[in-house]
Amino acid sequence: MKHLILLRHGQSLWNLENLFTGWTDVELSPKGRDEAEVAGKKILSSGIMPRYCFTSYLKRAIHTLDITLDTIDRAYLPVVKDWRLNERHYGALQGLNKADTASKYGDEQVHIWRRSYDVAPPALDPSDNRSPALDIRYRNLSADELPLTESLADTVRRVRPCWEEKIVPALQLYDNVIVAAHGNSLRAMVMMILHLTPEAIVSEEIPTGVPRVFTLDDRLKVVDDKYL
Amino acid sequence: MKHLILLRHGQSLWNLENLFTGWTDVELSPKGRDEAEVAGKKILSSGIMPRYCFTSYLKRAIHTLDITLDTIDRAYLPVVKDWRLNERHYGALQGLNKADTASKYGDEQVHIWRRSYDVAPPALDPSDNRSPALDIRYRNLSADELPLTESLADTVRRVRPCWEEKIVPALQLYDNVIVAAHGNSLRAMVMMILHLTPEAIVSEEIPTGVPRVFTLDDRLKVVDDKYL
Repeated sequence: MKHLILLRHGQSLWNLENLFTGWTDVELSPKGRDEAEVAGKKILSSGIMPRYCFTSYLKRAIHTLDITLDTIDRAYLPVVKDWRLNERHYGALQGLNKADTASKYGDEQVHIWRRSYDVAPPALDPSDNRSPALDIRYRNLSADELPLTESLADTVRRVRPCWEEKIVPALQLYDNVIVAAHGNSLRAMVMMILHLTPEAIVSEEIPTGVPRVFTLDDRLKVVDDKYL
Repeated sequence: MKHLILLRHGQSLWNLENLFTGWTDVELSPKGRDEAEVAGKKILSSGIMPRYCFTSYLKRAIHTLDITLDTIDRAYLPVVKDWRLNERHYGALQGLNKADTASKYGDEQVHIWRRSYDVAPPALDPSDNRSPALDIRYRNLSADELPLTESLADTVRRVRPCWEEKIVPALQLYDNVIVAAHGNSLRAMVMMILHLTPEAIVSEEIPTGVPRVFTLDDRLKVVDDKYL
């Protein structure tokens, strides 16, 4: 049996301030760091020790993984960082206060942006300094690979090749693999793993800091799905 | 021009206790963490920003790199961890107090173990629980790849293939590469970079926490060598 551990990062400084984050590279809050340590302790007592690790290009996920690995005393494990595991891009909403946005556009519109499968928030202008194409970490990518906004469907489309090209091969080589990432990139993975419909995935909520463990057989078929 | 940045980890908890460390996986002390942050600040003000990173399997080097990358706000950079960048293996001396060892074997013998090129300390017994073959992190390696003790010459021999197979190709692809490692694995690299003799390398001291920057031309010939 193999195990895939999905871990959603804990509270960030912008969660505290009630801002839309998306691809903004915001640090974990002290509470978020504690959540990562608790996740590590849960993994330790489960005995399901990862052998290979994935995370995004965003420090709230990277640091969640680092703290978790320190807690299980496996800082030496290989870690692959992939931009395709980033949070869903929130377009022009990034950096805006959630309450202000609801006042401006109405609760219903904000609910649609947050909870629909294929509706994206307003796009960033390509010259906006929040545009990923202007961020040095994405300089090896072409502008048409990089989003200016995303629906959850768009996020699923960019997570899929990372899943197929990197994570599935790692699961074929190693017994236990951990992915420390974000609410929506993990949702995309759950959709692929469980073959969920768009209707089912939008109501799937992955709690922060609680490792979700899929037990897989040698053909990577899910035989168990639980939280630690 | 390209840059290779070599960074020796700062003070560890066993440096504080005056113990021989070698491959023992000892954590940085608070002072060691501060040294890593200072190194990051020096890199930041030099403007020589790394694009690709190497470190060992030992947490005092891994955490030095992590803290340095956080200080320059590049936690997202790719990091390759390679056991061949570990500190020189100190054999049966690992975990012993340096003063006690000098009393037992004599100052001159300890000086020879520490400062000769090709004399190794007494080897560990393969059944010793300090043996790397019993450590889960090295389980993909065969017993004959793993040392039970090392002279500096042995360390150079195992660092060399990592240099040739991984670090040189990274320098061909990326302008600036950083290696966060240990006194003796970095000495081995300096020996290869500068084509030093065994006599010259044993007197080479790389200070902790001070980035050493080799400026290289496109054929990886050294054109400058300085500390930040």
